[in-house]
Amino acid sequence: MAERVESGIAELEVQEDVVDPWNVVSKSATGIDYDKLITKFGSTKIDDELIKRMEKATGKPVHHLLRRGVFFSMRDMHEILTLYEQKQPFFLYTGRGPSSEAMHLGHLIPFIFTKWLQDTFDVPLVIQMTDDEKFLWKDMTIEEANRLAHENTKDIIALGFDVEKTFIFSDVEYIGSCPEFYMNMCRIQKLVTFSQAKAIFGFAPCDSIGKIAFPAIQAAPSFSSSFPMIFNGKVDVPCLIPCAIDQDPYFRMTRDVAPRMGCLKPALIHSTFFPALQGAQSKMSASDPTSSIFLTDTDEEIENKIKRYAYSGGGATIEEHKQKGGNCDTDVSYQYLTFFLEDDEKLTTIEQEYSNGTLTTGKLKEELITVLQRLVGEHRRNRKLVTDEMVKKFMTPRKLNFQY
Amino acid sequence: MAERVESGIAELEVQEDVVDPWNVVSKSATGIDYDKLITKFGSTKIDDELIKRMEKATGKPVHHLLRRGVFFSMRDMHEILTLYEQKQPFFLYTGRGPSSEAMHLGHLIPFIFTKWLQDTFDVPLVIQMTDDEKFLWKDMTIEEANRLAHENTKDIIALGFDVEKTFIFSDVEYIGSCPEFYMNMCRIQKLVTFSQAKAIFGFAPCDSIGKIAFPAIQAAPSFSSSFPMIFNGKVDVPCLIPCAIDQDPYFRMTRDVAPRMGCLKPALIHSTFFPALQGAQSKMSASDPTSSIFLTDTDEEIENKIKRYAYSGGGATIEEHKQKGGNCDTDVSYQYLTFFLEDDEKLTTIEQEYSNGTLTTGKLKEELITVLQRLVGEHRRNRKLVTDEMVKKFMTPRKLNFQY
Repeated sequence: MAERVESGIAELEVQEDVVDPWNVVSKSATGIDYDKLITKFGSTKIDDELIKRMEKATGKPVHHLLRRGVFFSMRDMHEILTLYEQKQPFFLYTGRGPSSEAMHLGHLIPFIFTKWLQDTFDVPLVIQMTDDEKFLWKDMTIEEANRLAHENTKDIIALGFDVEKTFIFSDVEYIGSCPEFYMNMCRIQKLVTFSQAKAIFGFAPCDSIGKIAFPAIQAAPSFSSSFPMIFNGKVDVPCLIPCAIDQDPYFRMTRDVAPRMGCLKPALIHSTFFPALQGAQSKMSASDPTSSIFLTDTDEEIENKIKRYAYSGGGATIEEHKQKGGNCDTDVSYQYLTFFLEDDEKLTTIEQEYSNGTLTTGKLKEELITVLQRLVGEHRRNRKLVTDEMVKKFMTPRKLNFQY
Repeated sequence: MAERVESGIAELEVQEDVVDPWNVVSKSATGIDYDKLITKFGSTKIDDELIKRMEKATGKPVHHLLRRGVFFSMRDMHEILTLYEQKQPFFLYTGRGPSSEAMHLGHLIPFIFTKWLQDTFDVPLVIQMTDDEKFLWKDMTIEEANRLAHENTKDIIALGFDVEKTFIFSDVEYIGSCPEFYMNMCRIQKLVTFSQAKAIFGFAPCDSIGKIAFPAIQAAPSFSSSFPMIFNGKVDVPCLIPCAIDQDPYFRMTRDVAPRMGCLKPALIHSTFFPALQGAQSKMSASDPTSSIFLTDTDEEIENKIKRYAYSGGGATIEEHKQKGGNCDTDVSYQYLTFFLEDDEKLTTIEQEYSNGTLTTGKLKEELITVLQRLVGEHRRNRKLVTDEMVKKFMTPRKLNFQY
């Protein structure tokens, strides 16, 4: 999947939020206006009704990322729940654009939530590593993009996915080993004109023909016919795609072409963006190590970065903080806790105490440092256990532990 | 390979010859002005010097299609002869767009000549069946395009290619089984912008992104790295492409990107077009059975079509013909004989006698009918001997009988 890249747009004074697969620029310190985005994209806000229905159907509370509105928007989620209630099959599809070796915390969000979805609904999962896309967009060789796909796959495996239920694939390798996938690429490419691709993705005449044709490659895994070995040739297994909302343009296009291909539209569940340490208006960038916490950071680096760079919504002085309280809407440490601190009660206490000034920024940051050191430390240990053989197994096209 | 398709252009009064992979429209009854085309495309006219060098290097006379100027233009043929003289390897690449079951005589020309090149130089040959292209351009399913690729492969095999030295592939199948081919597609697609593709191929914003990205797929077989099983991973085996000149735009693009990929530019040898029965200004069309002789035509159909439809350059009456003689430059029967009558002496006699009015159009047509009934009859018998197993063998990616 495309990830937000450096863009000239970010350097300008923006009048309006910009959200597409390559740019996420917010005009406000509280970040993107997600309600406006829902209206603009034509998706549906996730409401209490959906969450209650999900809890009723699965018999357990929803994931905190859903409860806390990190996953906030959707398309056709009620249809997916109806399938689940009727014991009908569906599958999950998510992905990653392997642009660098160093994945950061934000990259984990869709995978953490996807794992919860898979554990909860017990369905097959396909994960696309778009090494071809990264080659087309970035100044790197295709071999290097493919190598990064394997490196990033290790990070994904380390999150605990079940090899019997999960297929991770590099585009370069899988397209070159599955004619059915390539046929779907062609079918999609036939139905999208340059004008349409330009309108959806902002392509210009100076863009390479590779970039222009790429959206079909991210669309293809939405169809079960692209994975004949998993679905035994069944072409009508519905798909649910958890992803950050900047990826929605790909799937709006997919949903547009699907009926014309005689295929089902994929359902979607969208997350907000993970803020940079410097705040929601900054960009996270793999080339700027101070912009985020990376999965390779040591305990010391985590502590240092949070203390030095995490944007504070607290008062300018201790006195002012005690008097006016902190602003949880802009405070990055608090924001990060909403993503990674599972304990609802503790989070509520932190929010109240920070807002009323009882909890200082220093103490709040200490809380976050503990949480992240534990999370990243655990990830570091788990990743070390991922062998090349495990990567090979996850990435081999094969039948999964589901019958069709 | 793209073949000339029905186009609005042909219906208009044209001021200038139009030649691109989808349109060949001539403003004159003698057909395209090939000298002008050479200047426009920037290729080189094949001269006596090249032919003599080729005869010296191979120790045998060149094919009559080369002697008679049907293959009339080239790029880097001297470099290929130098390689041959130095006993260095190269390979041949040609192709076909499988747009219909019924191949006509014109479709045979590049294959007849390619077979002669292979027999003469003893080199590997790859033949691309662009089923993906036909799907993208025509109103047909991808399955049907793929089926036609197999049907047309039978016609190609029937010409007598050596299975130990020839690999025939459908794009749909081969791209889906060879990551190296797909990687070359991506590399080419990264180096060509929409603007460039538009300038070369005339693409418009209403064209599908599949069409726009396709040229990279026809370019990719020019590089030996696209066939690791044939060339044992060797990436610098030079390529010679025999094709009709309307395919040149694909390879101008290929020659432009090759050095930027660190690859060798393919050499080319171009043929003129095979005229429709109604003359050089008409189009041959699979949907108009009277426009050409098809490989499935019976002896009676061949006789009928030549007698009824072959445009005559003879006089309006027998008296006028005897007095003024016939015009070989516009007479389609004579033109066809230059393609298929191997006997130089006999052809010269026919030309002289037709030009001076001794030979009537009726007798000339009888000569052609005999030649074509023999050719098509032989093809019909040979094609019946081509089994599905043989097709499978030709189309299986494998090592050929050459060492690298």
